[in-house]
Amino acid sequence: MILIKLGGSVLTNKNRKYSFRTHTVKRLIKEIKKSDIEDYIIVHGGGSFGHPGAEKFDLNTPDPKSPAEGMARVQLDMRRMNNHLLELMLDQGIWGISIPGGLITLFQDGELHELDKEIVQRYLSLDTVPVAFGDVTIDKKRGLTICSGDDIMVGLSSLADKSVFVSDVDGIYKDGKLKEEFTGDMLPLGEYDLSKKKKGTDVTGGMNEKVKKMIEISKHNRTYIVNGDKKDRLRRILDEEEVTCTEVKR
Amino acid sequence: MILIKLGGSVLTNKNRKYSFRTHTVKRLIKEIKKSDIEDYIIVHGGGSFGHPGAEKFDLNTPDPKSPAEGMARVQLDMRRMNNHLLELMLDQGIWGISIPGGLITLFQDGELHELDKEIVQRYLSLDTVPVAFGDVTIDKKRGLTICSGDDIMVGLSSLADKSVFVSDVDGIYKDGKLKEEFTGDMLPLGEYDLSKKKKGTDVTGGMNEKVKKMIEISKHNRTYIVNGDKKDRLRRILDEEEVTCTEVKR
Repeated sequence: MILIKLGGSVLTNKNRKYSFRTHTVKRLIKEIKKSDIEDYIIVHGGGSFGHPGAEKFDLNTPDPKSPAEGMARVQLDMRRMNNHLLELMLDQGIWGISIPGGLITLFQDGELHELDKEIVQRYLSLDTVPVAFGDVTIDKKRGLTICSGDDIMVGLSSLADKSVFVSDVDGIYKDGKLKEEFTGDMLPLGEYDLSKKKKGTDVTGGMNEKVKKMIEISKHNRTYIVNGDKKDRLRRILDEEEVTCTEVKR
Repeated sequence: MILIKLGGSVLTNKNRKYSFRTHTVKRLIKEIKKSDIEDYIIVHGGGSFGHPGAEKFDLNTPDPKSPAEGMARVQLDMRRMNNHLLELMLDQGIWGISIPGGLITLFQDGELHELDKEIVQRYLSLDTVPVAFGDVTIDKKRGLTICSGDDIMVGLSSLADKSVFVSDVDGIYKDGKLKEEFTGDMLPLGEYDLSKKKKGTDVTGGMNEKVKKMIEISKHNRTYIVNGDKKDRLRRILDEEEVTCTEVKR
């Protein structure tokens, strides 16, 4: 089974609220369809649908502003975004099923505490494609918090042989050079490596946090980050062909 | 705590696919807002968003056609409908949270087997309003089946003091007469009583099945059916004022 994470930065224009990149997303879905993979789960982030509202209401902090309102508004924005993706998937005959992060996770002080893998597996066994997404969720200590797409990837990683993070960068850079392999001892990333693509709002901790989660995931499966803005790279990595990317290892 | 079921027949025009009755729904939300109730959960059915697709793909039978496609299409239609309702709720400052039936239930051969009440209670405790809805869901025997809004009402009934079914009829009729009280021994309803409002597609068993579920629910709380097409009836019943309706008792 393969986990495909479609990052908010490829699904949306991070600099413009609620701007879904329909053309790019269509192409990525066609690449998945064209590939030889069979069992897979899609996970997506919030991009310019999720992050601005989450930031406005401080939902990723221990003390959010107007938490009930923030939760309601941001979860609706995320469902709108998820529906856009599901529509484009149906157009290509991929039978996606919406799995909101807020219904399958429980957090503890901002950290993933439980994820209901069973329900995801049940949908998978019905020959549908579970499409889980970052969301506002329940936190046993804080009341609520943000569950990122990356948190869901961590929670599902034990089910998969391979994880592919589709982003808007060619891979992970260290000292200005794209690394074919990236291991935990190379952290943290320097200012120079981070600044290359630092645009828009990201409430979920930025690239260093993301790479830490990838390293966590790589304990369970082969883990890659690939550039979804470049044509055919996603399909090539799904089909085990040579492609520009970074493999993350612990 | 009060359970409010907004029937598909008031939320949509059952004779026209995907026609959401925005004007009526706005009024009903304002009635809820205007009432004195505090803790409540909204549950809604599928109306002309859910039923036509469920019928097309035979999703309510042991042997559906193209089950993966049917499941994907119908669940997306239901999420679109749910988003319409949540938008109108946000406009009135009611902080609704989307709770798809397919994520909180497990069925066994077409019957509700488990419902995750805990997650609904967690959202309620955060001062949001859980909005659960009929959906395609997992069935341990059939693979998938339809979870109706009424099934969700049954599953949540032990949490509530009062259940209000908002429909497009004044209540339940027996031998052509509207009954103030309706008890299980009055079942089944005759042809004449059913024909009054038999329009559009309903894949979830029609009025006799609905009333049986209400009787089940009335074991746990006071259970009413009220006409949502008539102004102020919903608010009146929420506020314990005199109103035309039927109370269902076992």
